[in-house]
Amino acid sequence: MTRRIHLALHPYGVGGPGQHGLWKDPSVAKNASVDIGYYIRQAQAAEHALFDALIIVDSQFINATYPAHYLNRLEPLTLLSAVATHTRHLGLVGTASSTYNSPFNLARRFGSLDHISGGRAGWNVVTSFDTGTSRNYGLDEHLDYTTRYGRALESVRVVRGLWDSYEDDAFPADVERGVFLDPDKLHALNHAGEHFRVAGPLNLSRSPQGQPVIFQAGVSEEGRDLAAQVAEGIYAPGGTLEQAREYYADVKRRTAAAGRDPEHIKIFIHGGPIVRGTDELARRRAERIAEEDYDFHASLALLGRAFGAHDFSQYDLDAPFPDVAHLAERGGRTGAAKIIARAEAEKLTLRQVAETFAERKHSPFVGSPETVADTIGQWFDAGTFDGINLAFRNDEDLTRFVEDVLPLLQKRGLFRTEYEAETLRGNLGLPIPVNRHTAARQPVGAR
Amino acid sequence: MTRRIHLALHPYGVGGPGQHGLWKDPSVAKNASVDIGYYIRQAQAAEHALFDALIIVDSQFINATYPAHYLNRLEPLTLLSAVATHTRHLGLVGTASSTYNSPFNLARRFGSLDHISGGRAGWNVVTSFDTGTSRNYGLDEHLDYTTRYGRALESVRVVRGLWDSYEDDAFPADVERGVFLDPDKLHALNHAGEHFRVAGPLNLSRSPQGQPVIFQAGVSEEGRDLAAQVAEGIYAPGGTLEQAREYYADVKRRTAAAGRDPEHIKIFIHGGPIVRGTDELARRRAERIAEEDYDFHASLALLGRAFGAHDFSQYDLDAPFPDVAHLAERGGRTGAAKIIARAEAEKLTLRQVAETFAERKHSPFVGSPETVADTIGQWFDAGTFDGINLAFRNDEDLTRFVEDVLPLLQKRGLFRTEYEAETLRGNLGLPIPVNRHTAARQPVGAR
Repeated sequence: MTRRIHLALHPYGVGGPGQHGLWKDPSVAKNASVDIGYYIRQAQAAEHALFDALIIVDSQFINATYPAHYLNRLEPLTLLSAVATHTRHLGLVGTASSTYNSPFNLARRFGSLDHISGGRAGWNVVTSFDTGTSRNYGLDEHLDYTTRYGRALESVRVVRGLWDSYEDDAFPADVERGVFLDPDKLHALNHAGEHFRVAGPLNLSRSPQGQPVIFQAGVSEEGRDLAAQVAEGIYAPGGTLEQAREYYADVKRRTAAAGRDPEHIKIFIHGGPIVRGTDELARRRAERIAEEDYDFHASLALLGRAFGAHDFSQYDLDAPFPDVAHLAERGGRTGAAKIIARAEAEKLTLRQVAETFAERKHSPFVGSPETVADTIGQWFDAGTFDGINLAFRNDEDLTRFVEDVLPLLQKRGLFRTEYEAETLRGNLGLPIPVNRHTAARQPVGAR
Repeated sequence: MTRRIHLALHPYGVGGPGQHGLWKDPSVAKNASVDIGYYIRQAQAAEHALFDALIIVDSQFINATYPAHYLNRLEPLTLLSAVATHTRHLGLVGTASSTYNSPFNLARRFGSLDHISGGRAGWNVVTSFDTGTSRNYGLDEHLDYTTRYGRALESVRVVRGLWDSYEDDAFPADVERGVFLDPDKLHALNHAGEHFRVAGPLNLSRSPQGQPVIFQAGVSEEGRDLAAQVAEGIYAPGGTLEQAREYYADVKRRTAAAGRDPEHIKIFIHGGPIVRGTDELARRRAERIAEEDYDFHASLALLGRAFGAHDFSQYDLDAPFPDVAHLAERGGRTGAAKIIARAEAEKLTLRQVAETFAERKHSPFVGSPETVADTIGQWFDAGTFDGINLAFRNDEDLTRFVEDVLPLLQKRGLFRTEYEAETLRGNLGLPIPVNRHTAARQPVGAR
C-alpha cells in the first residue's frame, strides 16, 4: 500500500501557542474555547475533510498574564465525549497528565470514550512540567524529570493492563445457561510497581479498538525513549526540514531498538498552513498574523512556562538573561536548555529572549495551493513525518487548505479519498492489540 | 408557588441493585450499560416527560460475582457529556468519589460539563466505601469514616472555591482596549486544609449555573451532617412512609440548623414504580420480577459490599451470621449496623441474611395509574420527599408511568406541564450562587 499522509486538527478556540491576537479576530467567537458547538463544528469539518483525528491539548495552571485560550478552556475528556456522538470516523485524542491522574481513572475515562465513540479514542500522555500545576494538586514542588517519566511509563503500562481486564468474549450473556459473564475471562491486574499499586480489574469491557491509541510528545532523551517504548502517535517538535528528518529517523530507530515495528509509531509534525491564491498573498497574510499576534507580556508568561511557570516579570528586562538554569531541570528541560544556550551564545537580554520566543514558529507550509502541496510532498518524501497536526487561524484558513490543497494531495495519491476504517487504529494503520490473556491461552505456534 | 414533585431517572442498563435477572429481559440490550445510544434514548425519554434530571450512579470495584451492571459500565462524566448535546433541559447528575479524585480535576470536569450542557450539571458526591476500591487506588485499606467524610466536606468546599475563580464578568474581550481578561476578576484560592492544598485559580470561567448542583446520599450521622452543610440534592434511603418522614424532617432540620434555607435542599427518595391496568396486575408483575431477580450469589456479593467488599462466601452459609462488626466501621456503617442488629435479634444464619438482603426493596408505588398517583400524592403530602428517583425495569415500565401516571399528577397540580428553566438549578428551584468575590465587593446593604 502506498504510504499516505495522516492529518490531525488542533482546534485552539481563541488562540494557540503564540496566537496572542487571535481572540480579536471578528470571525472567532470570544467564547470559542468553552463553546462545545465550536468544537463539534471543527470536528465535523475535519471529518468532512477525511482527517484522522481531532487533538485536544491541555494545561492546568494559569495566572492573569496567560494567553486567552489557556485562561478558559474545556476539560479534554468531557469535550471529546460530547464531540464523539456527532462524528463517526474522526479519531478523538485527549490530553491527560500521568502525573496528576490515577491510572485507574485514566483507564476508565479513555476506555469509556472508546466505547462511546465506537473505537476512536486516543490518550495524549503528558507529564506536566510546572510548579504552578503541582500547587493545584497539593505538591509544593514539581516532580523531577526522572520521576515524571518513570511514572508516565508505569502509568501507561498499568492503564493498558487494566484495558485488558476483560477478554473480548468475556460476556456470553447466555440466557439459557444463565451466564452473563464467563468468570475465566476476567483478570485482576495486581500491579505493584515503583509508582503505583493497582489491583483491578477494570469495571469496563474491552473497547472497540482493543486499547485506545497512545500519543506522546517526546523531545528530551527521556521523552524519546518513552515514545519508543509505548507511543503509537508522536507530536514531533518540527523545526527545519533537517531537524525534523533527524528526529523522525531517531525515534523510528529507537522504536525498532525497543523491539517494536517502526511502522507502528506515527510521527506528526506541527503545521499551521497559510494558503492564499499566490505565494505573495500567503506571505503577506503570514506577516499580518505575526504582527497581530505580537504581545510582549503574553510571550514573557509563555517563556516562564518553559521554566516551570517561572515569573520572569520580576527581572530587569534589559539586563542579561537571568541565571535560571536550575529551573530547567524541573520545567521543559530540552526547550529551556535551548533558550539558555542561545541567550548565552548571542548575549541576549531578557527582553530579546522573550521577543524572539514570541515569534510565531514559522510554518513551512505557506504559499499558493500548489506551493503548499509541493512543500508537504517534499517534506513527506524526505522522511520528516507520517502526519501533520494542523492548527488553523480561523475557518477561512481551514477551508482554503481543505478545498484547495487536499485535492492536490489526493491527486498525487498522498492523502486518502475515503476513510479506511471506523476506528482511529484502522485509519492510522495501527494493529488492534490482542488481549494479553487471550494471547497467553493460545498455543505458541498460533500467537 | 405550589410545591411540586421533582423527578429524576436512574438508568441502570442491564440491572440496578437487586435487579439480578434484568439482563435476561429480551427487551433490554445485553450491552445497554456500555451503549451510549441507550443512555441518550433514556435521557430523551426523561426530557420528553419533563423530568428534572438523569442520575448516573457509579462504583469502581468488581469481582466476577458482581451483578451484571456493576461489571461493565461507562464512566459517569464521559457518559453525561455525550448525553448533554442531545438534550436541552434535563439535569445531568454524575457520581464521583471525593476520596479518589483530586478537587482540581473534579472542579474542571463538572465545570466543563456545566458549560457543555448550558447549565445542567450536578455532582453526586460519594466517599466510596470498600477495600476493593481502595486497592485500585494504591491503598491497602480503606480510609475510615471520619477521614472520608472530612475529605468530602473539604473537597466540596475547595471545588466550590475553584468554581468561583472567575467572576461572571471577568472576560470583557474588548478588542478596542485590547483587554480579553479583567485581571481583577480572577482569583487564586490558596487553600491549605487538613486534606488538600490547592492553589488555583481554575482555568475555566464560571459556568451557566454559577456552580453545578451538589448531590449527596447521607444516611449516617456524618452523612446527614455533610448533607445539611453542603448538599442541594439528597438521595434519601426511603423505607416506610414513617421512616421517610423522619429522615426528611431530620435533614431539613439539620439544614436549617446549619444556617441554610431548608427549601434549598431537595430530598429524593428511591422509587421503582410498577404500573399496570389494575392493582392486581401490577402486584403480579412485581411478584414475577422478584422471582426473576432472585440470585443468591449476587446477593451474597452485594451483602459483602455493605461490609467494604467483604467476601462472605468463605463462611458456612448455615451457621449463625458471622461476627463482622469490625468491618462495618470501614464499610457503609449505618446499613451494615442494621444488618447485624437484625441478624442478632432474629438469630439468622448467613444464608437467611443474604436471602432477605436479596429481596428487592419493595417500591411503595405499585398499582393501577390511579393507585400509584394517589400513593405518590399521599407520600408527598406527608412530607416524605421533594422528588423521586425513578428506576424502571424496562422501557415499557417507563412508558406506563409517563403516559398513565404523570398526566394524573399534572392534573392535580403536583407535576410541571413545562420546564421552568433551562438549568438544573432553575428547574429544581435552587438559587444561582453569587460569586463570593463579587459578593465581597458589594456594599453590605446590597448583599
